[in-house]
Amino acid sequence: MATTYSVVGKRVPRVDAVDKATGRSIYGSDIYLPGMLYCKILSSPHPHARIKKIDTSKALEVPGVKAVMTADDAPDVPYGTTGQIRDRSFMARDRVRFVGEPIAAVAAIDEDVAEYAVSLIEVEYELLPAVFDPLEAMKEGAPLVHEKIEEYVGSTGMRKGNICSLLTAERGEVEKGFAEADFVVEGTYRSQPINQGYMEPMACAAQVEPSGRVTVWTTTQGPYAIRNTLAETLNIPMNRIKVIPLEIGGGFGAKLRCSFEHFCVILSEKTGGKPVKMISTREENFTAIGPRLECVATIKTGVKKDGSITARQVHAVYDTGAYLGPGVGSGVGHSTGPYMIPNFKAESYAVYTNKVWAGSYRASGVADMVFAVESHMDEVAEKIGMDPLDFRLKNLLKEGDRSLTGEIIPSMGLKEMADAARKNSNWDSRKGEEGWGIGTAFSDWKSGTGPSTATVSLNEDGTVSILTGTVDIAGSDTSLAQIVAETIGVPFEKVVMAKKDTDSAPFNGPTGGSRVVYSAGRTVLQAAQEAKDKVLRFAADLLEASTDDLEVVNERVQVKGSPEKGRSLAEIARLSSTSKYGSIMGQAALSQLPFAPIYNQVIVEIKVDKETGMIKVLKFTQAQDLGFAINPNSVEGQMEGGAVQAIGRALYENYVFNDGKPMNPSLTTYLLPLAPDIPPMDTIMIETGSKEGAFGAKAVAEPPGFGAPAAIANALYNATGIRIRELPLSPDKVRAALKAKNNGG
Amino acid sequence: MATTYSVVGKRVPRVDAVDKATGRSIYGSDIYLPGMLYCKILSSPHPHARIKKIDTSKALEVPGVKAVMTADDAPDVPYGTTGQIRDRSFMARDRVRFVGEPIAAVAAIDEDVAEYAVSLIEVEYELLPAVFDPLEAMKEGAPLVHEKIEEYVGSTGMRKGNICSLLTAERGEVEKGFAEADFVVEGTYRSQPINQGYMEPMACAAQVEPSGRVTVWTTTQGPYAIRNTLAETLNIPMNRIKVIPLEIGGGFGAKLRCSFEHFCVILSEKTGGKPVKMISTREENFTAIGPRLECVATIKTGVKKDGSITARQVHAVYDTGAYLGPGVGSGVGHSTGPYMIPNFKAESYAVYTNKVWAGSYRASGVADMVFAVESHMDEVAEKIGMDPLDFRLKNLLKEGDRSLTGEIIPSMGLKEMADAARKNSNWDSRKGEEGWGIGTAFSDWKSGTGPSTATVSLNEDGTVSILTGTVDIAGSDTSLAQIVAETIGVPFEKVVMAKKDTDSAPFNGPTGGSRVVYSAGRTVLQAAQEAKDKVLRFAADLLEASTDDLEVVNERVQVKGSPEKGRSLAEIARLSSTSKYGSIMGQAALSQLPFAPIYNQVIVEIKVDKETGMIKVLKFTQAQDLGFAINPNSVEGQMEGGAVQAIGRALYENYVFNDGKPMNPSLTTYLLPLAPDIPPMDTIMIETGSKEGAFGAKAVAEPPGFGAPAAIANALYNATGIRIRELPLSPDKVRAALKAKNNGG
Repeated sequence: MATTYSVVGKRVPRVDAVDKATGRSIYGSDIYLPGMLYCKILSSPHPHARIKKIDTSKALEVPGVKAVMTADDAPDVPYGTTGQIRDRSFMARDRVRFVGEPIAAVAAIDEDVAEYAVSLIEVEYELLPAVFDPLEAMKEGAPLVHEKIEEYVGSTGMRKGNICSLLTAERGEVEKGFAEADFVVEGTYRSQPINQGYMEPMACAAQVEPSGRVTVWTTTQGPYAIRNTLAETLNIPMNRIKVIPLEIGGGFGAKLRCSFEHFCVILSEKTGGKPVKMISTREENFTAIGPRLECVATIKTGVKKDGSITARQVHAVYDTGAYLGPGVGSGVGHSTGPYMIPNFKAESYAVYTNKVWAGSYRASGVADMVFAVESHMDEVAEKIGMDPLDFRLKNLLKEGDRSLTGEIIPSMGLKEMADAARKNSNWDSRKGEEGWGIGTAFSDWKSGTGPSTATVSLNEDGTVSILTGTVDIAGSDTSLAQIVAETIGVPFEKVVMAKKDTDSAPFNGPTGGSRVVYSAGRTVLQAAQEAKDKVLRFAADLLEASTDDLEVVNERVQVKGSPEKGRSLAEIARLSSTSKYGSIMGQAALSQLPFAPIYNQVIVEIKVDKETGMIKVLKFTQAQDLGFAINPNSVEGQMEGGAVQAIGRALYENYVFNDGKPMNPSLTTYLLPLAPDIPPMDTIMIETGSKEGAFGAKAVAEPPGFGAPAAIANALYNATGIRIRELPLSPDKVRAALKAKNNGG
Repeated sequence: MATTYSVVGKRVPRVDAVDKATGRSIYGSDIYLPGMLYCKILSSPHPHARIKKIDTSKALEVPGVKAVMTADDAPDVPYGTTGQIRDRSFMARDRVRFVGEPIAAVAAIDEDVAEYAVSLIEVEYELLPAVFDPLEAMKEGAPLVHEKIEEYVGSTGMRKGNICSLLTAERGEVEKGFAEADFVVEGTYRSQPINQGYMEPMACAAQVEPSGRVTVWTTTQGPYAIRNTLAETLNIPMNRIKVIPLEIGGGFGAKLRCSFEHFCVILSEKTGGKPVKMISTREENFTAIGPRLECVATIKTGVKKDGSITARQVHAVYDTGAYLGPGVGSGVGHSTGPYMIPNFKAESYAVYTNKVWAGSYRASGVADMVFAVESHMDEVAEKIGMDPLDFRLKNLLKEGDRSLTGEIIPSMGLKEMADAARKNSNWDSRKGEEGWGIGTAFSDWKSGTGPSTATVSLNEDGTVSILTGTVDIAGSDTSLAQIVAETIGVPFEKVVMAKKDTDSAPFNGPTGGSRVVYSAGRTVLQAAQEAKDKVLRFAADLLEASTDDLEVVNERVQVKGSPEKGRSLAEIARLSSTSKYGSIMGQAALSQLPFAPIYNQVIVEIKVDKETGMIKVLKFTQAQDLGFAINPNSVEGQMEGGAVQAIGRALYENYVFNDGKPMNPSLTTYLLPLAPDIPPMDTIMIETGSKEGAFGAKAVAEPPGFGAPAAIANALYNATGIRIRELPLSPDKVRAALKAKNNGG
């Protein structure tokens, strides 16, 4: 960027660094209130059963037990995510549909007593036939997870059997496109169920005051979503609910929605207003809170000999588990990739099975689709004998093209990104030694928007306070403070983010979908600009100058050319607050921001141990077109963190079910990548700006989690000639494929 | 008022009623934090001494003591209230100037340990000569309380000897006025030292985080003032200090400023960030926190035979104690009363003595001046043989007159008020039986302004949240919620006040000087109007109508004449938040509001027991011109509460010093009025509106505390013919005066 900035673009330390490093940040489990009770839940051991009877009497007799609740204690209000089928209660009513579904909850004086009481609750079940594989579930005659989905409120397309949602997309004429092609290549790719792997479990506490006011402390990405769901399902007016979001030890989508907050609220009410706290076990994080489930995608692409893609058809089946989760199936929107495909048709089904409902995880369903599409791109390139990277570059989107959803692609850095990644990798100097391979994958995302509000105040000593309801997960508070400091013209240290709750900050969308720095960043910028305008207007009056003749230098408003004529920001704040202008504050509320796509490319180099089948990632080159890095530290952190998660998805992670029973709901058996699994990373930030984001910033967070699985699968093919179309690329699959290849060859 | 309102003007229950009645509100003493320490202070036993040595070593050796602090642990930054002499440290440095001045503070694991450690601190003093009476202190050669006041920062007029402030006022030519008079009457009146009598002691806690961020929980009327003083005296940037104001169990001015917060902050810092809490003893409330001290006022008035006042001269001496408190001496501004006095001259001195510094109490110094002026008005009426009420009415201010400070008196209800009070009392049907007397007093005040900010948000379920930094003492939150409900068009129950702290709400002035409902009320009104404008703009777009054609009926925006065409406020909030309009919120920051004077009249009937000298108030009629009563319950509560305090000031309360030593720093020896002392009250609200206040509201709080002392003194004269010019009108004084009169007569 040509402009010189003082604060944005700098590697400032995170505003919460000291508190976090010294253990003083307050997390959900740190909440202790006088008279607090502890909640434990009873969950279903069966994947599908009718509940004939629940007997809680023995549990209630345990000394120290203060209340037991079941679905009968809550209003019978179905809920779901906005725009989705409202297909569930928050506690099983009459029927359980997955192993781990909550059935009852106990509040007691400590966790041991609560757990003992839970063990005494007697439930009589009538077992029902169940279905676990989404393709099986789509078949005629499969056991129905929901018998009457036609009656549910809300919809997204088709409802038939276990199919609860159908998303479609079409452009051009796909049959004509295939007819024009020299080759048509087709493949089916399958991803695995995956847990978000957040370190901090769900932790919340709730207290109902005698006045009916409810306070909820919780570890969440979306305090307003929590408020919304509680208001809707418990029939409490929104402004009587105060949600205090605490520090968050990893969420990745899992903490966008209510987990156990309902139970704490109801149990608090049942105990006459005692605070009730719940910290989930690791097992509950797997079994009761939505992970991601598998996606089976069949992709057919028509291509000319010169490498131009003429058509693509996609058929995707997303397993949504027992309830329709948010945006299940919408990953299909990324099945063109960042390529111009003139003729396109896709259908994406969400299908019920008797497994835990599918939740959110880093752009839900997109990583699955990128694995399919980018594996497939290599297979198409292979077919026409073209370098996989050259093939991609030939079809890349350009400024002025239209996205699948109709937006015009603005000026962006896709080409610069691809050039930089190629240059920084060994793509053009392949080593080719035994077991070595290189592979790439592209991906796209759009900067998240949605509502954000912010207030920026100038204090009477010249410091600045920001108030937003945006939750900081990965350093966004620091970036927002940088934006405000730069805009007002004060040093970074002078800006502080106020702590938030849903009472004190107006409505904000959740922290997810790569929205905070783009969308909330733009909002705080605008609020800061309004505050600065007020500063200048008041100063103009005070200094008898026109606002145009004023500048802020060293925290002082002065007349250009006559620097001795000026007042410090502190003085201006002080004087203004008792003048007719009032206190200096600016405010902004924004929602829909313009289309600002972002792009990512990964190039991995791997070494395959042909004996064990183990893949070792040797080097990870990643480039992303992100507009402008407000805080390069945070951006690199996001990109590298995403890469680590994507490596886990590619090679290790797999949430296994056996007849609907989770087999590895623990961090000893569910394999997250460990430090030795992580290769050296080359992380390239492509800063070509953007028109709408603050200082040119676009989004960062999601795409770094997309590319690795396909890139590694492609590198595996490059190294060994074997193509694995199912995740994870585990040693057993690699060994089996090598064996089959050797037997075949 | 002609307009019909749905919410304002109604007697709605206080929003905090349930929490307060059930004991669930959180006060300063309710704060418990893990690892909390308790603070106790050592204070001076001498009214004036040099500190030669402080030895804290024995205190530090007590097991359980974690830190001991003295002035040496704090920056040597003098402070005072803005615009005043900066004449003090917050802990005695080198010298003590009053009995009760803090010298050292201890933080220990409990209060007993802390108290024991305090008793082991050894201080070596060199006693200095002291002065206690303000008139003595003004004399040449009196011991100097401060030797070098000329060097202090800040000023309000004269500094000489112990005189630290001189305020003057002048209009017309006072000598000419006296020359025109038929009679000149002069009298000297003296008020007593008085404690505010708040039930809840000072209670605060502070914690310094490793990042340097300071959180202060405290019972306060002015969280921003606390933040300001801490920032200034401890050299901490304002945005690193978060002050959380808790519920307040009475303040009346005493809780406008820092009490012991500094000590807690410094002790927390010295103990590596442990939370430190301090609850003051009742004695400390008297000896360490500023009460009001005496005022001696000499008033000379020239009057014509027809009752018109031609001139007045006032000489007032306010005792400010050891340090110059806020606005000491400014009560002189009320020495004209609500009368048109063409020629006027006043001088008002603030004088140091070796007593605790004078703080704030219900319009500091004004009640003292009203006692003088309104006693004097009766003496003047007597001189010319006129009915005291008729004499007052003859000289009353009228619309278009100019106030002493130059503002033009707007349309107001002074005349209506006087008519109503007269009609509702026995003024014109005096009973005249033995010992019975009737007396009146007028007073004036202006509606308080100063900075206020507010944000009003419409939630997605149609409820409304208000965010301001204004502290609720006497029901103002309820009134603000009513204003917002009326403005937006929702029922009262749908509006909630968010809880506040200095981080989350932008700058607000303190709750004092009758400013909240007038000034913050206007601010929330404006914020609510902005929110409503946004509602209508968005709805106009949605309903394809012009905003002028829309109306809000039953929480629904609809097209006038086509009520079926509409959307609920909830829907509008929901749809707007994801539209280009963003979330619905309005904001306002106001400061100087127009001059809106208010007036009060008291008529009391008493019975004097001539044997004991006891005065019993039989009936208390009070009328106030207050514009419009947003919540008549709150207004009556304010007016009656003020009357009770004024009766205490008139008859019972007296904070006695003997050689500078407080003689009655406890509620058993300091006589507050008790329930049997309170007469039936007739409380009349005169609602003639105002141009600038929300729905015509002006201020309420201060004037009800002004009139009783003079009205009772006048009634005493009416009953017995004795004139007592010194407060309180205690039985011993009445007996002595009766005896003197009988001896004389």
